[in-house]
Amino acid sequence: MIEIERKFRVTHLDCLQFAQRSSRISQGYLSTDPARTVRVRTKDDKGFLTIKGSSSSDGSSRYEWEKEIPLDDALELLKLCLPEPIYKVRHLIPAGKHTYEIDVFEGANAGLVIAEIELERADEPFERPDWLGEEVTGDARFYNAFIAENPFNTW
Amino acid sequence: MIEIERKFRVTHLDCLQFAQRSSRISQGYLSTDPARTVRVRTKDDKGFLTIKGSSSSDGSSRYEWEKEIPLDDALELLKLCLPEPIYKVRHLIPAGKHTYEIDVFEGANAGLVIAEIELERADEPFERPDWLGEEVTGDARFYNAFIAENPFNTW
Repeated sequence: MIEIERKFRVTHLDCLQFAQRSSRISQGYLSTDPARTVRVRTKDDKGFLTIKGSSSSDGSSRYEWEKEIPLDDALELLKLCLPEPIYKVRHLIPAGKHTYEIDVFEGANAGLVIAEIELERADEPFERPDWLGEEVTGDARFYNAFIAENPFNTW
Repeated sequence: MIEIERKFRVTHLDCLQFAQRSSRISQGYLSTDPARTVRVRTKDDKGFLTIKGSSSSDGSSRYEWEKEIPLDDALELLKLCLPEPIYKVRHLIPAGKHTYEIDVFEGANAGLVIAEIELERADEPFERPDWLGEEVTGDARFYNAFIAENPFNTW
């Protein structure tokens, strides 16, 4: 499946009062190669394995394959991952007919807050709430696979 | 799950007359890092995703996680893999209470023939038929992940 996503920094955290749902995420990488990223994630009490291919030239679309796996398997596989998983809390905030996913990073990435919106077409219009900051779609520094090896507190 | 395996070169191919079953395998790698290898495989009409951790110091045991996935997913994921999948035919040959898997490589690895036997304990005795050659357990050159990047015809 091809995902079309746009990504932004978040300017004020007061947006979180509108969160409909929040989940705790831990994730690590078996490969951080942008052409074949392999991610292990726990999200609350579930496990997932996700493989992503190269981004399109504008950075907005990317092949993505995801499979739910048992939580215990994900916890075992996290031990194989590159050092220091990423910890974050993901909040879902509705905006018109879309939903923003706001990732509030913790630990070595505390201070980093990213909003993502998934679109059906690259040119589909969407609401831009006033807490939405600079667009970083396609900027490799904001790939979680990059952040896993280069935490925000080293930027 | 931890796998205990010993691996050998094969001296004569006449052992193949004893094959009980043979399967055609294509496989590629999303990560060839020996501490976190990620393999995509098609085996006849099935797909598999396999993740392996580091080997034990003697090379005979290794954490392995495997999941069957739809064949079409495996074919899509093979396109993301590092260049040139490995092609081989695997023959199963019984020997006492064990079964040898004999991999006859093709393409850039033609000429390479490897036998593997899975054991329950590292010191478990097993039959050594006369076609069994030099032991290569733990020799990283005979990891398929190494062969994928360094085909036998370049050795």
